[in-house]
Amino acid sequence: MSFNVTILGSGAALPTFSRNPTSQYIVCNDRHILIDCGEGTQIQMRKYGVKFQRITHILISHLHGDHYFGLVGLLSTMHLLGRDQGIKIYGPIGLENIIRNQLELGGAKLDFSIEFRSLDGKSAGLLFEDKLIEIHTFPLKHRIPTNGFLIKEKQKERILLGDLFKADGLSIALIPFFKKGADVEDLETGKIFSHLKYTLPPKESFSYAFCSDTVYSENIIPYIKDVTYLYHEATFLEKDRARAKATFHSTAMDAAKIALKANVKKLLLGHLSARFENGEMHEQEAKSIFINVQFVEDGKVYIISEL
Amino acid sequence: MSFNVTILGSGAALPTFSRNPTSQYIVCNDRHILIDCGEGTQIQMRKYGVKFQRITHILISHLHGDHYFGLVGLLSTMHLLGRDQGIKIYGPIGLENIIRNQLELGGAKLDFSIEFRSLDGKSAGLLFEDKLIEIHTFPLKHRIPTNGFLIKEKQKERILLGDLFKADGLSIALIPFFKKGADVEDLETGKIFSHLKYTLPPKESFSYAFCSDTVYSENIIPYIKDVTYLYHEATFLEKDRARAKATFHSTAMDAAKIALKANVKKLLLGHLSARFENGEMHEQEAKSIFINVQFVEDGKVYIISEL
Repeated sequence: MSFNVTILGSGAALPTFSRNPTSQYIVCNDRHILIDCGEGTQIQMRKYGVKFQRITHILISHLHGDHYFGLVGLLSTMHLLGRDQGIKIYGPIGLENIIRNQLELGGAKLDFSIEFRSLDGKSAGLLFEDKLIEIHTFPLKHRIPTNGFLIKEKQKERILLGDLFKADGLSIALIPFFKKGADVEDLETGKIFSHLKYTLPPKESFSYAFCSDTVYSENIIPYIKDVTYLYHEATFLEKDRARAKATFHSTAMDAAKIALKANVKKLLLGHLSARFENGEMHEQEAKSIFINVQFVEDGKVYIISEL
Repeated sequence: MSFNVTILGSGAALPTFSRNPTSQYIVCNDRHILIDCGEGTQIQMRKYGVKFQRITHILISHLHGDHYFGLVGLLSTMHLLGRDQGIKIYGPIGLENIIRNQLELGGAKLDFSIEFRSLDGKSAGLLFEDKLIEIHTFPLKHRIPTNGFLIKEKQKERILLGDLFKADGLSIALIPFFKKGADVEDLETGKIFSHLKYTLPPKESFSYAFCSDTVYSENIIPYIKDVTYLYHEATFLEKDRARAKATFHSTAMDAAKIALKANVKKLLLGHLSARFENGEMHEQEAKSIFINVQFVEDGKVYIISEL
């Protein structure tokens, strides 16, 4: 099952020719999730071939416009295109009111339900889970209440050694236990069948954490510990540290420090200030302490797992 | 003084690759006016080189998202770029609340004032005037309250025949009267100095009317009588008449009939449904009864007057 992120907007508050405001489309084990939805996101989706009717979950980090001004337009377009499947939206307190008010004033009666869940920007917790994935939220540290998000695959099943299993003539009723890593006792003979003999360890479970917008904060490390990919904002460079501090944003070095301390596999940098042509300097700055780093670009797809 | 319209969005509810939702930038005698502001308008402005800090008046026709979802983002960007000049916004009841609510939740304290004036979509009237221009509103007929707009140059001054005036040795105090078309009497001699002798008729005053969205309605004709350019929506073609009626939109033929009956000089067609690749068929349909017609395209500038 694949796990990847399409960057729909890698810019900060001011859109530029090459960078739209924040939005990311995540496909994880055939679950389709949108994180943030800056103005123009629906147009980016068309441009990059994202089929937005597939989206079932929308996560909004905070109520700065470059992270949600495109949401009501996206929902309206979903409606106009005949959507009838419900959608879940997780976002800050106040978001539901804004969206419902705008839809109502426009006279739109949606043919699909919107299930809002308000986030206070202070609490961490599980937002959603099914048999394959989990979505968590955790607080970031910004000028207004802001939520980070973690999307992770659940622990996968152990891999059955089918030939050996058959050769020993065991009942197929044992398979689910073995796959979950449980041994089984034959109640008549007292014999123990060990899952270790008949299975290999499960494939790796991958994860993706989204941290934007935030000032440098070690408080987030426990929530993103050991993730496969960390997207961390890097609005500025070290030379703009004063500006970063004043606006509660991070530098590329800040992001690298967090990545290092959280022991993540790979760091993606985004939310670059409009003053930068691209993220090469950000990447360079971060690389001095954390090698596996890349700045993201609109329209590019980052593969967390192809398995 | 020039008078022109830049089309920032010529599409209808669903954005396409070539057509953004509705927005138009009007320059009239160095006054800078925005009509409607669909999602992505600020990005279109950058693309087409519109300096949006010059805008002093924003007119919003109605609260369907394709006509205003880009407004709050535009205002936020104006703020981020350091605007301190106030702005006037004329739009439907409910708009002010939406915009102020979003700005407040985002924690933005604007450095410029917004003066809102609510329009009920039922009344006609003068919204603004200065020494050179007037802005009027009038009701359209759509599913929700919707406003049309008329921007017109005031009647210009008569043109002084300077050489003749000097040759006759008249006092310069008479010039303002002559330019306004008034005769002046010499109170001592009783002699009348006729403005007709010393002036030529004023240059033509031009005007632009915006009608979107609306079903065919002859009620609007008195408001747009004899305008230089009429922009009238033409979401559909005659073959889609049932759909036009059901959604309170017009066909190209409807727009042409209105143009003919209102005796306008030129008709511009826009707000084309996403089902059409371009407006060639709309133009053709309208031309069968009104020859001076053109469909508009994003990024193009239509010159109402170069004088």
